[in-house]
Amino acid sequence: MADDIRDLARAAREASRVLVRATEAQRNAALEAIAVAIEQNVEAILAANAKDLVAAEPAVTEGTLSRPLVDRLRLSKGKVLKTIALGVRSVKDQADPIGKTEAATELDEGLKLYRVTVPIGVLGVIFESRPDALVQIATLCLKSGNAVLLKGGSEAFHSNRTFSRILVEATRGLDGIPEGWMHQLEAREDVQSILDMHDCIDLIIPRGGNELVQHIMANTKIPVMGHADGICHVYIDKDADIGKATQISVDAKMDYPSSCNAVETLLVHGDIAEAAVPSVIQALKDRGVEVRGDERTRALVDVGVADETDWSTEYLDTIVSVRVVDDFDQAVEHINTHGSHHTDAIVTENRSTATQFLQSVDAASVVHNASTRFADGFRYGLGAEVGISTNRLHSRGPVGLEGLMIYKYVVEGNGHLAGTYQGDDARSFTHRSLDETWPQDR
Amino acid sequence: MADDIRDLARAAREASRVLVRATEAQRNAALEAIAVAIEQNVEAILAANAKDLVAAEPAVTEGTLSRPLVDRLRLSKGKVLKTIALGVRSVKDQADPIGKTEAATELDEGLKLYRVTVPIGVLGVIFESRPDALVQIATLCLKSGNAVLLKGGSEAFHSNRTFSRILVEATRGLDGIPEGWMHQLEAREDVQSILDMHDCIDLIIPRGGNELVQHIMANTKIPVMGHADGICHVYIDKDADIGKATQISVDAKMDYPSSCNAVETLLVHGDIAEAAVPSVIQALKDRGVEVRGDERTRALVDVGVADETDWSTEYLDTIVSVRVVDDFDQAVEHINTHGSHHTDAIVTENRSTATQFLQSVDAASVVHNASTRFADGFRYGLGAEVGISTNRLHSRGPVGLEGLMIYKYVVEGNGHLAGTYQGDDARSFTHRSLDETWPQDR
Repeated sequence: MADDIRDLARAAREASRVLVRATEAQRNAALEAIAVAIEQNVEAILAANAKDLVAAEPAVTEGTLSRPLVDRLRLSKGKVLKTIALGVRSVKDQADPIGKTEAATELDEGLKLYRVTVPIGVLGVIFESRPDALVQIATLCLKSGNAVLLKGGSEAFHSNRTFSRILVEATRGLDGIPEGWMHQLEAREDVQSILDMHDCIDLIIPRGGNELVQHIMANTKIPVMGHADGICHVYIDKDADIGKATQISVDAKMDYPSSCNAVETLLVHGDIAEAAVPSVIQALKDRGVEVRGDERTRALVDVGVADETDWSTEYLDTIVSVRVVDDFDQAVEHINTHGSHHTDAIVTENRSTATQFLQSVDAASVVHNASTRFADGFRYGLGAEVGISTNRLHSRGPVGLEGLMIYKYVVEGNGHLAGTYQGDDARSFTHRSLDETWPQDR
Repeated sequence: MADDIRDLARAAREASRVLVRATEAQRNAALEAIAVAIEQNVEAILAANAKDLVAAEPAVTEGTLSRPLVDRLRLSKGKVLKTIALGVRSVKDQADPIGKTEAATELDEGLKLYRVTVPIGVLGVIFESRPDALVQIATLCLKSGNAVLLKGGSEAFHSNRTFSRILVEATRGLDGIPEGWMHQLEAREDVQSILDMHDCIDLIIPRGGNELVQHIMANTKIPVMGHADGICHVYIDKDADIGKATQISVDAKMDYPSSCNAVETLLVHGDIAEAAVPSVIQALKDRGVEVRGDERTRALVDVGVADETDWSTEYLDTIVSVRVVDDFDQAVEHINTHGSHHTDAIVTENRSTATQFLQSVDAASVVHNASTRFADGFRYGLGAEVGISTNRLHSRGPVGLEGLMIYKYVVEGNGHLAGTYQGDDARSFTHRSLDETWPQDR
């Protein structure tokens, strides 16, 4: 690994230790400076973006880069001013995640314990295509007091470089903001360098397609926050309202077919299949969805064949597979076996079946009588979204700023010794819950 | 990897999905059954333990097993009845960690979001020596609804096998408790098998010495909850009360010298060194502590030499190193560079210096005017302790039952579609915080 990248990571660690002491006002001033600098540099940003678009054309012609990917790369004056600069101000306006007292306990007279939120430390972010991802992630890190090493995709090379320069220059020398709080890496081999630095980087956040995320998860010992697949299900129970089932199935597939929380497989209880399958499938076909069914589905409607591989495929497209199941248990079994533990829904009017489903399905989000598409940081009211996680540690489901925080324990005493609480004359702990925040003098 | 171990891990995943639905009463009944079975099988436990003690003797004679390790292996009737069986009942008496509603939000009329605690899933626990660790960890897992694969050290082979058999048999067939919720592995190669199963095991908890933990951390992609080193500091500030500094230094070293939260290095501010160093060091020497000092320390008192390696050594013994620092910043710099981010303390009467220290030192526990030895689950009032973590994700510092939990998001709607909240006629989310728990009908 290049020594200079290790130096950068060390510098990021140093910076994180300075940044954690920046006040909320200092971090917000830096975010405002970034928003202003983006507004003032629209022309430079668009010029850099134009270079990326021109450079992308041969790859599109050759077929190595898809047209939708290039479209996601494209910036406009409106997008820069409205979406990106405004996005920075909306991060600024979020509640300060640092220094919240999560719990306070009196251990004994004059001996108090506080659990206080602090940033995780140094994050490594690897992202594709959209250059606005750089600004979003970097500003979320700044707000939450985390230092960050970023590596963007080569297709947005010029745009990323320009945004990176703007952010670094806008925050240089500002009170409380250390040099090195963010750094953008540019060489292809830097990706592996980031993944290898488990002693310097605390968390990897991948922002990009399935393939990128899987590659990252397979090639690092650093915890990765995210999800590879989004194989989501809608289970239409025997006690479902068929109207709701139809609308929810269509919304869950068609609201945004290529998103991770779109449905890929519909499961239909055998007792309601005859009544529900034709109606649901017709509605999907009317919206242009390609439907693939198992044998029992195909006995009811004229659709293509779904086989075992369909149950484990994230189509990211206007395709859905359908399976008729024997009963509730088989539906849950199917979801827990083939799903990606991202988001799964049940449609039923039976309260007790719903509760059983929500308890039994092993997923980050479980949904009753609503679309899987609600599983999203904005819709959940988390404010800015860091990503959606299918991890079973730290953060699960849509992740907001809170997901970039950890805590430290603060003990305040007045000469207290552990020995006092041991042996024959041992003093007892009071362990009384306190309603106060740390520090008391601030 | 042996296929049967993979089968065991799959069975553990299946079991975890059943166990999550067990009621608190069912899990507590299983814990009571375990406590009773341990009480009824004292003789069998002691007989198995005696076999381990006999088997250990040649290794002690050869010097490959230390006497203290054998002592930790030894069980007595009193220990089995009082400590172990009582320990199971104290886990039983903890508040139920499953199904707590951490947050509830109204997204829109009739559309509600709940964040509810659930078990992590399947844990892999690798432990050394003390056979009571098996019982403690397995019962913490049962209480928290996690399935567990355990691998104990060969020195406690017979004791572990007996405890494992007692736990499995005591819980077999009980309502709500699945077969396979715990399994003890016995072959040496099973350790690596556990570490390789990142698709089946969600979290590794090592319970043992530094070497074991480091080996595990270096050989798995599964998140590991724990700490390798405990290099803890006491910083004696220029505004310290020397009496407090002396008592705290002695307690932090001598309360239990081989524990991870014992102090290894004292840092003394240059302005107070002349007054503080002789008093503090004399008190340590009086308690039999070997003191190693840097040059400035040795100019004041007659002690051995501390060099760079001392700053990074966890003695786990009655040894302490001492360094005189120029100022506050050098102390913080020393701790953040050489420490293990476990527990660090400041002794000072200056409120503002204390706050600065507690904010600047990057450790799981930071302590003002008290001993580092307070960093412990029992003393912190967390109830049962899973371990102490220096991770920067999920759980940090002393970890209680809460550290074995994650959450899922539950969405309850009535036919709500994501499309309703988009486009020209978009409906707005209410995002109103609710004071209710899920499920409402339970």
